Amino acid sequence: MKNTFGTSIGITVFGESHGPAIGAVLSGMAPGIPVDREFIALQLSKRRPAGKISTARAEKDEFEIISGVFNGKTTGTPITIIIPNKDVKSGDYSEISRLARPGHADYTAQLKYHGFQDYRGGGHFSGRVTAAIVAAGAIAALALKAKGIKIGTHLKSCAGIADREFSDAEADIDRLNALGFAVLDSEIAQAMINEIESAAKDGDSVGGVLETAVCGFPAGVGEPFFDSVESVISHAMFSIPAVKGVQFGDGFALAGMRGSIANDPIQASAGKVTTCTNRAGGVNGGITNGMPIVFSCAIKPTPSIYKTQKTVDYISLGNAELSLKGRHDPAIIHRARIVVDSLTAIVLCDLLAQRFGTDYLMPQVSE
Amino acid sequence: MKNTFGTSIGITVFGESHGPAIGAVLSGMAPGIPVDREFIALQLSKRRPAGKISTARAEKDEFEIISGVFNGKTTGTPITIIIPNKDVKSGDYSEISRLARPGHADYTAQLKYHGFQDYRGGGHFSGRVTAAIVAAGAIAALALKAKGIKIGTHLKSCAGIADREFSDAEADIDRLNALGFAVLDSEIAQAMINEIESAAKDGDSVGGVLETAVCGFPAGVGEPFFDSVESVISHAMFSIPAVKGVQFGDGFALAGMRGSIANDPIQASAGKVTTCTNRAGGVNGGITNGMPIVFSCAIKPTPSIYKTQKTVDYISLGNAELSLKGRHDPAIIHRARIVVDSLTAIVLCDLLAQRFGTDYLMPQVSE
Amino acid sequence: MKNTFGTSIGITVFGESHGPAIGAVLSGMAPGIPVDREFIALQLSKRRPAGKISTARAEKDEFEIISGVFNGKTTGTPITIIIPNKDVKSGDYSEISRLARPGHADYTAQLKYHGFQDYRGGGHFSGRVTAAIVAAGAIAALALKAKGIKIGTHLKSCAGIADREFSDAEADIDRLNALGFAVLDSEIAQAMINEIESAAKDGDSVGGVLETAVCGFPAGVGEPFFDSVESVISHAMFSIPAVKGVQFGDGFALAGMRGSIANDPIQASAGKVTTCTNRAGGVNGGITNGMPIVFSCAIKPTPSIYKTQKTVDYISLGNAELSLKGRHDPAIIHRARIVVDSLTAIVLCDLLAQRFGTDYLMPQVSE
Amino acid sequence: MKNTFGTSIGITVFGESHGPAIGAVLSGMAPGIPVDREFIALQLSKRRPAGKISTARAEKDEFEIISGVFNGKTTGTPITIIIPNKDVKSGDYSEISRLARPGHADYTAQLKYHGFQDYRGGGHFSGRVTAAIVAAGAIAALALKAKGIKIGTHLKSCAGIADREFSDAEADIDRLNALGFAVLDSEIAQAMINEIESAAKDGDSVGGVLETAVCGFPAGVGEPFFDSVESVISHAMFSIPAVKGVQFGDGFALAGMRGSIANDPIQASAGKVTTCTNRAGGVNGGITNGMPIVFSCAIKPTPSIYKTQKTVDYISLGNAELSLKGRHDPAIIHRARIVVDSLTAIVLCDLLAQRFGTDYLMPQVSE
Repeated sequence: MKNTFGTSIGITVFGESHGPAIGAVLSGMAPGIPVDREFIALQLSKRRPAGKISTARAEKDEFEIISGVFNGKTTGTPITIIIPNKDVKSGDYSEISRLARPGHADYTAQLKYHGFQDYRGGGHFSGRVTAAIVAAGAIAALALKAKGIKIGTHLKSCAGIADREFSDAEADIDRLNALGFAVLDSEIAQAMINEIESAAKDGDSVGGVLETAVCGFPAGVGEPFFDSVESVISHAMFSIPAVKGVQFGDGFALAGMRGSIANDPIQASAGKVTTCTNRAGGVNGGITNGMPIVFSCAIKPTPSIYKTQKTVDYISLGNAELSLKGRHDPAIIHRARIVVDSLTAIVLCDLLAQRFGTDYLMPQVSE
Repeated sequence: MKNTFGTSIGITVFGESHGPAIGAVLSGMAPGIPVDREFIALQLSKRRPAGKISTARAEKDEFEIISGVFNGKTTGTPITIIIPNKDVKSGDYSEISRLARPGHADYTAQLKYHGFQDYRGGGHFSGRVTAAIVAAGAIAALALKAKGIKIGTHLKSCAGIADREFSDAEADIDRLNALGFAVLDSEIAQAMINEIESAAKDGDSVGGVLETAVCGFPAGVGEPFFDSVESVISHAMFSIPAVKGVQFGDGFALAGMRGSIANDPIQASAGKVTTCTNRAGGVNGGITNGMPIVFSCAIKPTPSIYKTQKTVDYISLGNAELSLKGRHDPAIIHRARIVVDSLTAIVLCDLLAQRFGTDYLMPQVSE
Repeated sequence: MKNTFGTSIGITVFGESHGPAIGAVLSGMAPGIPVDREFIALQLSKRRPAGKISTARAEKDEFEIISGVFNGKTTGTPITIIIPNKDVKSGDYSEISRLARPGHADYTAQLKYHGFQDYRGGGHFSGRVTAAIVAAGAIAALALKAKGIKIGTHLKSCAGIADREFSDAEADIDRLNALGFAVLDSEIAQAMINEIESAAKDGDSVGGVLETAVCGFPAGVGEPFFDSVESVISHAMFSIPAVKGVQFGDGFALAGMRGSIANDPIQASAGKVTTCTNRAGGVNGGITNGMPIVFSCAIKPTPSIYKTQKTVDYISLGNAELSLKGRHDPAIIHRARIVVDSLTAIVLCDLLAQRFGTDYLMPQVSE
Repeated sequence: MKNTFGTSIGITVFGESHGPAIGAVLSGMAPGIPVDREFIALQLSKRRPAGKISTARAEKDEFEIISGVFNGKTTGTPITIIIPNKDVKSGDYSEISRLARPGHADYTAQLKYHGFQDYRGGGHFSGRVTAAIVAAGAIAALALKAKGIKIGTHLKSCAGIADREFSDAEADIDRLNALGFAVLDSEIAQAMINEIESAAKDGDSVGGVLETAVCGFPAGVGEPFFDSVESVISHAMFSIPAVKGVQFGDGFALAGMRGSIANDPIQASAGKVTTCTNRAGGVNGGITNGMPIVFSCAIKPTPSIYKTQKTVDYISLGNAELSLKGRHDPAIIHRARIVVDSLTAIVLCDLLAQRFGTDYLMPQVSE
């Protein structure tokens, strides 16, 4: 099922950048979860472009919920959210219908869809599709919050500038979720923005690393083999355009440590088991251990740059040069952050429903 | 399906470290693929411990194929491979039935299986289960080889020592597949082994990074969203015990680049499209572009170390100290390499069968 | 994935009878399939109520395709079709928010959704959701037709009156697909309609058996065990509300035969293998044999009847009597027929794509 | 996943009739379920041929559990059961390597596996594979029994002779499960056996209908659409060789009723809701209603008969006559009954684990 992910709770995405709408179906969510339209709008606003560090395309992201919600609460049946495309300028894309943009999926789309793909604005490959994930993920995040589970993501690094590390995960998450540009060290934010603007001036773009923490998630969830928590989360994260790496806890840094450093010592206090460090990112043997789940996603620089690039005409297979026009983001990492949060929320709801049953996330039974 | 992975071609694993056997069912493979028992044995030999840098447990890995092969060839029906456990010393593990080994799944297994888990040798969480993946993956690798597709993995780094990078991918893969200790720079191998032995002497362990290259894989395979090639491969890789990070192409390093550097320029020559660099690791928009598929897995240091560690008794929840005895690997990265190769082979066969049909890997039709 | 079905090609349905819209996402269809909006409208018209033998609810079923179609052809990415609900009279349903209608899902919905379900008009359980399947199935049917594969369904029996059997399957299918009320023996149609009207006058309803034939489907498709063609088709058919039985070929009648009668003798002529009879319905060992695929679905009488019925108030759990008002169908079998056709088309496309690859249904490659 | 079925709890089957062994992997079962080897042997004995009404092939079905059981209880990890093939006479099958047996999968296997299939004894298509389902299903049945859920199947009809209907479902189930030849009316058993023997004398075979009842299953389980309880059970049942029809409750008979008869009136007594009749077979809108789940499977007559039959040589495609030799069953319905029970047990465990979580079937928590 190519555009559907999940087992007990699933997300199906659809839509093209310049088609009538993009959207998502969120299925299997427990009934009775309050659907706060303002919170959905708030989450969408965090994905929307803002100022000089984003594209000038201004989509209002006015969403419609066309199924699965009744009297302001989830019914338990599939929730469908539609976000119409409004500020579309397809004229900008006439040239790229033949010239493959480096770093984009134009050429691979041609190989897979044989010329029938909607090439305008990247079509189904557009990051715009992720707006639907944000809207659906907002409902999942609300369900988790009612269970005391919180998710937050920061720009661990951007354009080579590093944010500070998580310290008090829960407090840090709360702070991040109140921010539009999500860094823990407020003094670093402007430096990152300066670098993004500097790249924009050069007709270039930057990337970074997003780090996500989840607090309050139960221990004992996940599977030893193919549905390890790492497997499932990474599967989801690598579907987000621009993600090229995923690591849990200290991840690649663990590769250079000795076991005596890498192993998290275990301790108990008043019947509660924790680890002294959290280098494993809250997962041992594929199963959560009760510590915060921590993982990072490498976000490559936006491939749409204004500098002239070497490429081919994918019909004639002749060599060519490409100078992009149109409206493009010099960075998407600050926008991708809420996509990571939202998709994580959906995946965690699924893991909980698989482990504890389909009513687990229902706030209360009103029979 | 917790212990099964795949769509058109699937792998199901089972078994415990100290139970009667471990094994795997490989289903959906095309009929007619020659099953070379010597090649399976060769691949298994690359996973077996060797010398001072490995555990002293000496399993011969004598495998039995109990279904799906007839007259030396695959029938098209499920292939089941059993590897009996023979050199088992369960007495070594009496202590750990209550003390959670840091970095292991003992505590999380307790939370998930409530005391019913087979704790001996890590039970189902043991790396030993991966021997079955190697045996099944050998058949997949043979099927791919017949199509001109080759897979090779090297220790990109181990204990902080770096191997050289892939240069001519196909030649490098051939060289790696002839080696027991898979490094491209033969002079570096001894330095790595020295570091492993040094850690062993200290009662400690080391990790590293495995980098895998795939040559000859067709372009146009994969999906734009949830079944992106990165999603599917990472899902599989994160199921291998000890993997804590996965990245494609330049992965996390892309996060620090500008787009003008990160984008792979595209070129055509004689109707063949390639990219000038391969920072994307052969995948754009979730779909293969015909360049080598390149990805890396972070392998944490073996958690079984002899140094005294802080932990808890997971029944009484009291604090304790643990000094492991028994036979343990000071490093598993050199053994994990063939597990990565083998699981990759299975996943790639599945991607091909989904894209081109279930007969695609059949050597010839003999109707 | 509760509301999604399929492996290579999948269908996701959503919506409630009295919500803003119902719809479906059809994913995995090959690119390049012409999307004939008039044919979709024609198929939807066969599901729409007509005259005295149907409900008076008059939905125009004006559908919108909001993704996956570009320049009149499928792109290969998910196709989403929305059908707004317009002629909604929710006031009719105030009483049933507490009294469980016998034969409906009111009581079981209460147990599963704990009072949060949209009870109006059956909510997500409404047959109305099947309109989205018809719209999506029309695209699948066009893809099959281009490959010479045709599907047709007749009312094998209705209200106890039997239609004649399939004779020349292909010609019969063509005839059925031109009809609104699908019976092979045109003289029998009026007798069935009379019986439906007679039941309607009595405030009652009738059921029947739908029989489907598929011509031109390739041999060698399907799986020996869990994805037998019978398994997959029956899984889909039993999701259609009102289907309570599914049989292949002679089905339950085979149970009373001896093997010498039940076995279809095999014959060859000019290199083409056929069976002399088709009691197996075109499937042996789960795999198609090249004969027409023939199966039947038992359709129970519409549960919405005007006669007074015993039931319970599902909140108070007190006994009660229920006399339905509102607009209801005295029979839905004549409308369900196109739902069976359409869902069959989707399932068959999926089986073909799994067997022969995702490009198999693409009309032509235009690279 | 062709040979794997299930979502939270899955069954994977493998093996060929004349290969080394057949077997199954049962994954996702809760930990702590006592594994009663004698009960498994008892269930297997009900599938084994007995006397003149069965094949003379005498397999002892000595099973080995090679994973997932520790100290006599399930661990929660995959349970693998192997049943070696011992009484194999492959010489009997030399002729059928080219002549397709009518009613068997020989010809369709050739089309799918292109000559590489293990043709001996039907290979993977053999009913023998179902022995593994019986062994795995025994564990599932024990888990259900501990929850007060019982399953029983009778020969509703065989060779045209009808058994009496279920009356007190729970008592009837208990009686059936103590029988080798499962009929409710003990006087009818001999008449059926006589008919089977009579067919055997004629070199012919008979079929029948199996009816299954499940008592004690919770209400509110199942899904409104594609994973309706009927969809999931029928999917599983149609994977059993020889099943050509599945119906729930009154099934096809509902097609001839009026709604006022077909609808089950609902009543409540002391807070417990039941239906006055159970024509729906315990399922409304895809979801269980708390009444016994009742369904029937049409079992076609054994296709292996000694009478001369018309067929083709599937290599040369020439016409031929076939007179089977070897050991064959004149009926398999009395043996298939335990296969239906066992597969039903597995499917029901899966439905429960999906609905109520993966610990639901665990007898007690011993943390």
